[in-house]
Amino acid sequence: MGSLKELKERVWQSNMDLYRMNLVVHTFGNVSGIDRSRGLIAIKPSGIPYSELTADKMVVVDLADKIMKGRYKPSSDTRSHLLLYKAYTQIGGIAHTHSPYATAWAQANRAIPCLGTTHADHVQGEIPCTAKLSDKQIKGDYETETANQIIKRFYRLSPDEVEMVLIADHGPFTWGKTPEQAVYNSLMLEEIAKIALWTIVINPDISPLRKALIDKHYLRKHGKNAYYGQR
Amino acid sequence: MGSLKELKERVWQSNMDLYRMNLVVHTFGNVSGIDRSRGLIAIKPSGIPYSELTADKMVVVDLADKIMKGRYKPSSDTRSHLLLYKAYTQIGGIAHTHSPYATAWAQANRAIPCLGTTHADHVQGEIPCTAKLSDKQIKGDYETETANQIIKRFYRLSPDEVEMVLIADHGPFTWGKTPEQAVYNSLMLEEIAKIALWTIVINPDISPLRKALIDKHYLRKHGKNAYYGQR
Amino acid sequence: MGSLKELKERVWQSNMDLYRMNLVVHTFGNVSGIDRSRGLIAIKPSGIPYSELTADKMVVVDLADKIMKGRYKPSSDTRSHLLLYKAYTQIGGIAHTHSPYATAWAQANRAIPCLGTTHADHVQGEIPCTAKLSDKQIKGDYETETANQIIKRFYRLSPDEVEMVLIADHGPFTWGKTPEQAVYNSLMLEEIAKIALWTIVINPDISPLRKALIDKHYLRKHGKNAYYGQR
Amino acid sequence: MGSLKELKERVWQSNMDLYRMNLVVHTFGNVSGIDRSRGLIAIKPSGIPYSELTADKMVVVDLADKIMKGRYKPSSDTRSHLLLYKAYTQIGGIAHTHSPYATAWAQANRAIPCLGTTHADHVQGEIPCTAKLSDKQIKGDYETETANQIIKRFYRLSPDEVEMVLIADHGPFTWGKTPEQAVYNSLMLEEIAKIALWTIVINPDISPLRKALIDKHYLRKHGKNAYYGQR
Repeated sequence: MGSLKELKERVWQSNMDLYRMNLVVHTFGNVSGIDRSRGLIAIKPSGIPYSELTADKMVVVDLADKIMKGRYKPSSDTRSHLLLYKAYTQIGGIAHTHSPYATAWAQANRAIPCLGTTHADHVQGEIPCTAKLSDKQIKGDYETETANQIIKRFYRLSPDEVEMVLIADHGPFTWGKTPEQAVYNSLMLEEIAKIALWTIVINPDISPLRKALIDKHYLRKHGKNAYYGQR
Repeated sequence: MGSLKELKERVWQSNMDLYRMNLVVHTFGNVSGIDRSRGLIAIKPSGIPYSELTADKMVVVDLADKIMKGRYKPSSDTRSHLLLYKAYTQIGGIAHTHSPYATAWAQANRAIPCLGTTHADHVQGEIPCTAKLSDKQIKGDYETETANQIIKRFYRLSPDEVEMVLIADHGPFTWGKTPEQAVYNSLMLEEIAKIALWTIVINPDISPLRKALIDKHYLRKHGKNAYYGQR
Repeated sequence: MGSLKELKERVWQSNMDLYRMNLVVHTFGNVSGIDRSRGLIAIKPSGIPYSELTADKMVVVDLADKIMKGRYKPSSDTRSHLLLYKAYTQIGGIAHTHSPYATAWAQANRAIPCLGTTHADHVQGEIPCTAKLSDKQIKGDYETETANQIIKRFYRLSPDEVEMVLIADHGPFTWGKTPEQAVYNSLMLEEIAKIALWTIVINPDISPLRKALIDKHYLRKHGKNAYYGQR
Repeated sequence: MGSLKELKERVWQSNMDLYRMNLVVHTFGNVSGIDRSRGLIAIKPSGIPYSELTADKMVVVDLADKIMKGRYKPSSDTRSHLLLYKAYTQIGGIAHTHSPYATAWAQANRAIPCLGTTHADHVQGEIPCTAKLSDKQIKGDYETETANQIIKRFYRLSPDEVEMVLIADHGPFTWGKTPEQAVYNSLMLEEIAKIALWTIVINPDISPLRKALIDKHYLRKHGKNAYYGQR
C-alpha cells in the first residue's frame, strides 16, 4: 500500500467517493483501509461532516483499537472493522453506508434474492442478511458483536466471493482487496437493492435466477475462466 | 446568538440549506431562529421564492407576533413557530418542510415506527404524528392550533429527545438548539421516512426494533455516555 | 404582454424551465403563451430537443391554427392549446408535460384525491382526470377532442380555481394567467402527485382531507381573504 | 457513416450519453455502431469505467467477431450485438443498459404493457420480454443465445417498429438506425418503464390502452402520415 500518508489519502478519497455517489449523507457511513505490513488501519473520524474531511483528519489505529495517529476519535464503528480485518486477512478495505435501498432490505431483515444478472455479476447467490443481535450482544461490546454476526452468517460463505452483507435492522457493510473495491461494492449493492425492490413490486411472485445463469454471469467476471474486462 | 444581523444571516442560510438539500421547492417551507435574550425571532418572509431570498429579507417578529423589523410579511406559519418557542424554551430554531417522504407519512396519518438504527440514532422510538385538527380548530386560530396539536402529542415526550414531528394531513416540523440543528433534523427525518417506506414495501410485516437496540444507538449519540462524534 | 418578441422570449424561457426542473425529457412537453390583444399564441416547435431551442424558434400561430411567424411547425398538441385559450379567455399560458408521477396518475385513470395540505394549497378538491376518449374522438380531430374532454370534465369546475388536469391515458395539462404560472402549476402538480403516491403506499385506506382543512389551506393562498405571500 | 474514425467518435459519444443520462453506472452497459459498407462495428471495450473512455479506446470488430482495430478486448456482450446486426440489416446502432426501471421489468419477466401515450409514441403495443434461456443455452454460446432469444421473440414483430426489448432476468437492449437513436430509445424505455411501474402501483387493475389510441399516437410520430416533428 505504500506509505501511511498514501493510505490516509486513499481512505479519505474513498470516503469522499461514498459522499459523491450519494451513498451517504452528512456524517453517515465510513470507509477504512489497512496496511497489512504495518498492522495499521486508517479510518474516517467519528461524526465529522464529509464536507470537512481531509486526508490528514483520517485516524490511524492498530488492530488492538489503539489510536496511533490523528487528532480525532475514530468512527464509532471501528471495532466492527477491526474484527473483520482480523477474521478475513485477505481483505484490504471496508465500507459501511446507510444507502437507502440497501438499508431498507437490512431493515426489512431480508436477504436480497438473486433476481437478475446485475446481481449475479457481483454475487453468486443471495446477498446475505445477518441474524438479529440478542439483548446481551447489544448491551455487551456492540460493535464487535455486529462484526461477529457477519462472521457467523458467513460460516459457509466465502468473503472473497461475497463481498457484501446486510446487518439486520441496520444497513450494509461491504469490503474488498482495497478501500476503492469496498466502495465499488457499496455502489453495486445499492443498484442491486434498488432494482430488486422494483422487481418485487412489479412481480411479487418472482423466483431467483436458475443456478446456471447465476454461475454464468458470476464466472464471466470472476475466477480463472473470467472473460469480462481486460484480463 | 450574537447580533440580530447574525441571526438573520444564519436563518437565511438555514432556509437556503433546505432548498439546496432538495427538502423544499419554490416557496414551500420555512426556518426560523430565536434570540432568547432579546425575545426576537427571525423567520422567512411569506411566499418569496428561495432564489430571491437574502439575509436582509428575513422578517424579525417578537413573541407576540409583532413585526419588529423587515419590509415583508413573515411566513404564514409564524404563529406555529411562536407557540413552540414559548412552550419549549430550550429550543433555538424551527424548520418546516414539505419534503416528499416525510410529508407522505404525515398525509398517511402514520407515526414512523423505529425500523432501523438510522432512525434510532436520532429518535428513541417512533416519530410521532399529531391528531387531526377538528373543524373548530381549523376555523379558529389555525396556525396556533397546529402548534397546540404538537404540544398535546408531546404530553409524555421530551422535545429535547424527539426533535421532530409529523403534522397529520400536512407535513413535518423539526427543531433544535439552533436553526442549523433544526435543518439537520429535517434532512435526517426525510432519510428516515424514505428508508422506512421502502422497508414496509419489502416486508409489510416488519416489527419495530427491540428496545435494547433503540437505546444502544440513541445513547451512542446522545446523553452523558455518548461516544459518537468528537465529544 | 408587451411585444411579440417578448412573448416568444417568455414562452421559450418557460419551456426551458420545464426542462431545467426535470419535468420533461428530450422533446416531450410544451408551453405556450397568448397575447390576447393580438390574438396570437407563441408555442414550442414540434420535436425539437430542448437543448436546441431558442426564443426565435418559438412558433407564432393565431387562434385559427394558422402559422403567423416562425420557420418551424408548431407542437403537435397546438390545437389542444387553442381550444383551451378559446374556452377559457382568462388564461394566458398553458403547459403540457409527461412528468413521471403526474403521468402515472393519468395513466392509472385516477383523479388525485386531496390527501394533504400541499395539495389543498393549490387545488380545493381532487385534481380531476378526464374521461377516456372514444374511438370516434381519437380518429377525428384528436388534439381538439383532447381539449374537449378537459372542457367537459370542467363542466362544474372553475378553470380559475383548478388550474391543472390529468388527461386519461396521457398526462397532465396545466394553465394559468401567464406561461410562468402554467409552468409553476406543472411543478406543483408533480410534487402533489409524488407525495400522493407514497401516501397511498403507506396507508391504502387513507381518506381525503376534511372540507374545513381543504378550504382553510386553499383560502390562505387564494381569494380575497388570502394571507399567504406579500399581497 | 463516413470514416472509421468518425464511427468510433460517435460510438464513444453515444456511450458517454448513456452515462450522462444516468442509464448506466461504473462500467455497466455498452453501445455499438456499424459501418455497413465496411462490415465493421465499433463497440465499447470491456470493463473500462466510463470516466476513462475515449474515442480511441473503442474496439473495432468485424461481423465474425475478429478484432480489427484497438488495444482492448471488446464488450463481453459483443456477440449479442453481432447477431442482431446480422439478423436486422437495417439497423445501425445497438445499446444495452442496466437502467433500473427497465431492468426491474426484465427481472420481473414482464413485458411492459402499453399503459399510456408516452409509451404509444414509441412502441405500438407492449415492450416485449424474451423467454428465459435454458440451461443448455446458458452453458453454450451464451451471448449469441441471448440475441437468439430476441430474434425468436420478434418472430411476428418488426425491429423497425419495436426498437427495444427486455431480456428476461437481465435488462434492456435497444437499437435504431444510428447509435444515437439506440441511446435515445434506451432513455425513452427507462421513462416508459418508470411511469408504468407507478401506474400499476396506483391502479393494479389498469388495462392497456385501446388500439385506436395506441395507433393514433404511434402514427403521429411514425410512418408516412406522421405529423409530429419537422418532417
